[in-house]
Amino acid sequence: MSDVRRILVAQGGGPTAVINQSLAGIALEARKFAGIEAVYGAFHGVRGIVNQDFVDLGQETADDLNRVAQTPAAALGSTRDKPDLKYCQEIFRSLRAHGIGSFFYIGGNDSADTVRIVSEAARADNYPLRCVHVPKTIDNDLMVNDHTPGFPSAARFVAQAFMGANLDNAALPGVYIGVVMGRHAGFLTAAAAMAQARPDDGPHLVYLPERPFSLEGFYTEVKANMERYGRCVVAVSEGIADAQGVPVANSLMAKVEKDAHGNVELGGGALADFLTRSLKQSLGYKRVRGDTFGYLQRSFAGCVSDVDQREAREAGENAVRFALKGDRDGSITIHRTGDYAAGFQFTALEELAGKTRHMPDEFIAESGSHVTDAFRRYLKPLLGSGMPDMQRLHSHPIAKISFEN
Amino acid sequence: MSDVRRILVAQGGGPTAVINQSLAGIALEARKFAGIEAVYGAFHGVRGIVNQDFVDLGQETADDLNRVAQTPAAALGSTRDKPDLKYCQEIFRSLRAHGIGSFFYIGGNDSADTVRIVSEAARADNYPLRCVHVPKTIDNDLMVNDHTPGFPSAARFVAQAFMGANLDNAALPGVYIGVVMGRHAGFLTAAAAMAQARPDDGPHLVYLPERPFSLEGFYTEVKANMERYGRCVVAVSEGIADAQGVPVANSLMAKVEKDAHGNVELGGGALADFLTRSLKQSLGYKRVRGDTFGYLQRSFAGCVSDVDQREAREAGENAVRFALKGDRDGSITIHRTGDYAAGFQFTALEELAGKTRHMPDEFIAESGSHVTDAFRRYLKPLLGSGMPDMQRLHSHPIAKISFEN
Repeated sequence: MSDVRRILVAQGGGPTAVINQSLAGIALEARKFAGIEAVYGAFHGVRGIVNQDFVDLGQETADDLNRVAQTPAAALGSTRDKPDLKYCQEIFRSLRAHGIGSFFYIGGNDSADTVRIVSEAARADNYPLRCVHVPKTIDNDLMVNDHTPGFPSAARFVAQAFMGANLDNAALPGVYIGVVMGRHAGFLTAAAAMAQARPDDGPHLVYLPERPFSLEGFYTEVKANMERYGRCVVAVSEGIADAQGVPVANSLMAKVEKDAHGNVELGGGALADFLTRSLKQSLGYKRVRGDTFGYLQRSFAGCVSDVDQREAREAGENAVRFALKGDRDGSITIHRTGDYAAGFQFTALEELAGKTRHMPDEFIAESGSHVTDAFRRYLKPLLGSGMPDMQRLHSHPIAKISFEN
Repeated sequence: MSDVRRILVAQGGGPTAVINQSLAGIALEARKFAGIEAVYGAFHGVRGIVNQDFVDLGQETADDLNRVAQTPAAALGSTRDKPDLKYCQEIFRSLRAHGIGSFFYIGGNDSADTVRIVSEAARADNYPLRCVHVPKTIDNDLMVNDHTPGFPSAARFVAQAFMGANLDNAALPGVYIGVVMGRHAGFLTAAAAMAQARPDDGPHLVYLPERPFSLEGFYTEVKANMERYGRCVVAVSEGIADAQGVPVANSLMAKVEKDAHGNVELGGGALADFLTRSLKQSLGYKRVRGDTFGYLQRSFAGCVSDVDQREAREAGENAVRFALKGDRDGSITIHRTGDYAAGFQFTALEELAGKTRHMPDEFIAESGSHVTDAFRRYLKPLLGSGMPDMQRLHSHPIAKISFEN
């Protein structure tokens, strides 16, 4: 029969820069407990469990696990599968065969929902299984948590990208638009605001999914910044939606497909391209550039928050402690004390599984197109040490000389 | 009249991560020479000269200049202006008014051409002006140079991006396409190959402007990698062109504009979106993702090669020495000794102004869709110290258990 001291770990959803820290945290913390019989890893999430694609994490050296922890993306591979009851039965068949009694799943809200489904099915099936969800998502949209592992590093990437983009735009002035991930929550897009050191630094505008987006308002605000600064840097969430809640990207795709008689299906860069084109056509600006940050922001190698690394590691360690010392299933949640310490709690899966947390009102400027200082104070300690420092010339002007002729 | 000890510095073309190192190198090296009367900076390149938008770099502290040097993009601003004879007359009018006798222009091949034009016009005009071009371009396409400041840092960004993208793609398998800058020279796209640590690591394919690109060949090669590895990571230069030399991006734009009756003008992400869409439609793959690295690769804050920083600084320092101790105009060029040291020479402007260097044949694999080890050996010392290390699990497999029922 199953034994809580026989552990299985898997990873689900989109990779992050620190998801392997949680994996290493689980594998190494388990070694400190007496009587741990096995720490297995399943490849590609729940699918790997069904297929018994298991590896023995107990045979990895601590040094190797620590190096894997420093490596972005998911070392065990990932999946987007969401198990139904039949899928759960197949999971239990594998777990039973290997006597697994503890199941750790590192992932976001969908993965938390998977853990909830497996947990409930195990109880219904009378299969003794300790189920623990370990948080991870660059979207930062898990309920209960102050923030989630993976978000600080992605936020750091976005902030550093906008630091550079702001200076690039200052060197060759015009409009720059950077489209950032996060379909439903604006946290990651809002991180762009950390690039602002001086009042005239970009991003000058930050558009979030939490506030309705209109092209007219966009034109007006860009124009105001162009008149004020001679340039404008804009951070846009890929999830911006109109007043009816329809994502701009969706309506855009339908519109352009129709224009092109079904021949044109827009891809990853469509929203940035649409916004830059619209600005050129409507306001007549010549230099309008757009980037879509895409996959770089979630798995770029070498742009990691050390605070994020540490917390992701501790989330894994705490998962093992709660699982082996406790008597219930749940999710590791991160909580903030002061400015700044992180604490870990064990929260019922129902409180966050499949739910989405949004940017609170206090983090969004009244204009609806920027963030507040409260957000900056919230994010700053998470970005970690060694953020680059952007220095300008002091610019002592030389008096102009009038020409005789 | 003008005095060679009255110096003016400006920056032209696209920003890089280290162009301010060259600026600081010039400003600080000039302080070591006796009798230097002025070190001015002009805002936004040659345009700032015409407009007398000058600042006194002599009043910046060494500490501030060293911090500006660490900051990406062009601290003095940039321009794409190319001066004609009338423009040169306006330049000389400004220079004469301020008694400037040394002109330093930090930029790529277009900027080198600007220096050549100004140099020739000054001679024709009998205006005594020492003109020095200081190299800078992420495209690495300046003749004579072994490589150019800015390229190593951009190459490092591209390599780190593909390290992460490769692991992201391994976690959630499919096809990943990353489109990299460089319209005429493939050096920066080729840098993606530095992400490969093991034989099955991506990028599995690298498409350069130096070799003809065909969609059919692309399909065949992607399919072969999908069959072999179950996934495929592709680096594509924005400048890939067909056998007739027509850039794919151009023909693509014309085609889609026609499809859409002139309503759709494709933007920055068009090539990546076209390639991902084509693969989905032709080969039926479900998970095909594309990113366009865009402006991030040239001005991302915090991803810099220390070798690049040092050499960009030295390029500026050497410019001052050649200008003040020599008797001719020219361009600072970088030359390689052994594995690895960099030396600086002073080369006639005609040898590189307005010309483009391409990837040599020895750097391109026979297949035409990857790089050679000679290229890897060439690039490796330029990337600098502290490149991230990608560690996998050793993956000791657990034997599968066959189920009774």
